[in-house]
Amino acid sequence: VGIGDDCAAIQFPSGHEALITTDFSLEDVHFRRDWQPAASIGHRCLLRGLSDIAAMGGEPVAAFLSLALPRRCNQRWVDEFLDGLLRLAREFGVSLAGGDTAQSPGKILADIVVVGSVPRGKAVLRSGARPGHRIYVSGTLGGGATTLHELSTGRRNSIVPDDLDRYLYPTPRIKVGRALRERHLASSMIDVSDGLSTDLHHICEESGVGAELIGETIPLGGQNKKVSLQSALHGGEDYELLFTAAANKAIPSRISNVPITEIGRIVRGREVSIRLQGKTRKLKPQGWEHFRE
Amino acid sequence: VGIGDDCAAIQFPSGHEALITTDFSLEDVHFRRDWQPAASIGHRCLLRGLSDIAAMGGEPVAAFLSLALPRRCNQRWVDEFLDGLLRLAREFGVSLAGGDTAQSPGKILADIVVVGSVPRGKAVLRSGARPGHRIYVSGTLGGGATTLHELSTGRRNSIVPDDLDRYLYPTPRIKVGRALRERHLASSMIDVSDGLSTDLHHICEESGVGAELIGETIPLGGQNKKVSLQSALHGGEDYELLFTAAANKAIPSRISNVPITEIGRIVRGREVSIRLQGKTRKLKPQGWEHFRE
Repeated sequence: VGIGDDCAAIQFPSGHEALITTDFSLEDVHFRRDWQPAASIGHRCLLRGLSDIAAMGGEPVAAFLSLALPRRCNQRWVDEFLDGLLRLAREFGVSLAGGDTAQSPGKILADIVVVGSVPRGKAVLRSGARPGHRIYVSGTLGGGATTLHELSTGRRNSIVPDDLDRYLYPTPRIKVGRALRERHLASSMIDVSDGLSTDLHHICEESGVGAELIGETIPLGGQNKKVSLQSALHGGEDYELLFTAAANKAIPSRISNVPITEIGRIVRGREVSIRLQGKTRKLKPQGWEHFRE
Repeated sequence: VGIGDDCAAIQFPSGHEALITTDFSLEDVHFRRDWQPAASIGHRCLLRGLSDIAAMGGEPVAAFLSLALPRRCNQRWVDEFLDGLLRLAREFGVSLAGGDTAQSPGKILADIVVVGSVPRGKAVLRSGARPGHRIYVSGTLGGGATTLHELSTGRRNSIVPDDLDRYLYPTPRIKVGRALRERHLASSMIDVSDGLSTDLHHICEESGVGAELIGETIPLGGQNKKVSLQSALHGGEDYELLFTAAANKAIPSRISNVPITEIGRIVRGREVSIRLQGKTRKLKPQGWEHFRE
């Protein structure tokens, strides 16, 4: 990775291809300065890109941060934001290789680009799910959205420290994604950034299949049973990996110390449904969607 | 280039490396909706990235657009913005391979990432200028800033149509940059996006040299002699290429039909100066700088 100049230059090992993803983090859309410390906002800004690289089974290489700050922005806030971002970058061997800065006409705006590398043609796509494949998720779901809800309603003191830490500084599932790709286990994969219901629909649309979840098997996050199935289905914010695997693949119950849980199966057709207490109902994509009213 | 999924995947020819550049286009910082048609704003948004690729002698491959729009944004404006951007992308064989969208809490925000390709180790850097090298610029300077000034002071009707068109839809100097790299002519290069004085300082800083411009030789833009030397020195907005070449290189007077003009030479030391009417004075970097007060 070369720094500076008009562009950064990045060399990829022969036989590898580049993965590129770009994600906004906008004040009062993706984060709130009064709910989160600056270091968390920086961490989560980079996390969004790393999680996309993880969902392809890739290795992150470099990041580019475009940051627009209002004129009166506190320098200490900016330093802590960068600290949080750079700490996560170091942990995953990612160089901050460039970006852009500007004075924002209003709020704080960040756009993160993450460049990764994957052996040519080996990236795990959304489109590989086939009827009969099992559906799995890493970690637990719903914890992030539940903690965010508590923060947003002024109940920060009622949040268990572990839950708060998991919301403020989630771990991108790079190692899990890479292991699934290297061992040829996953037939399709996506990160659960928008919510299970929405992200599962993305896999089904790209693969031309349907899915049936078993409600009771969905692993709920949170330390003290406050997380509802609704939060786990639609909540987003967890940055876990959702993937499918052929029925004959033996999926370990943990990968890199992260629990892996089977939560349903891919079916023919296009319908996405959930079975709960013996009853099957349609599952609509109700997670985060940009530009929704 | 692969589209969709969590990331885009891009393959580079063997022996090539990736060039990556990222540039904000923020409403009321980089553009004004009342001064420019939406198609021009889209064109110039992509242009900023293409111009950076040109300045390395690279070939653009793919672009990623992150776009945040206020809730009330007119759909026709967005369509025209994208038309302008995509027309320029097609002209230079660039795929729009991804990006992000969001609802802006205020004004329109765009961040463009352009990915290019260059033979490994062959990118033209800012750091290769040596004492005795000649300084050249493509095209003309000052026209963009002068037209912008006229637009900003409500004198649109006094602008010559050619000048308006050059301001609204500048041509990125991809062909010129590539030719300079392929023929091993340029020892250092940068695009004049911030203004000649500022961008020449960037070359001098990175190369550890000084420079002396000959004021009378600087090619002024504009059809009717309204462009001042001050605009050409500090104006930015022109997206021409500024480069240096060893004295023994024969630099053509036109490359890809764009005039190339010698405007000075690189000297020892660190001082950047301009000679005008026989007198030499110090040239300070007074072009566009982000975060300036």
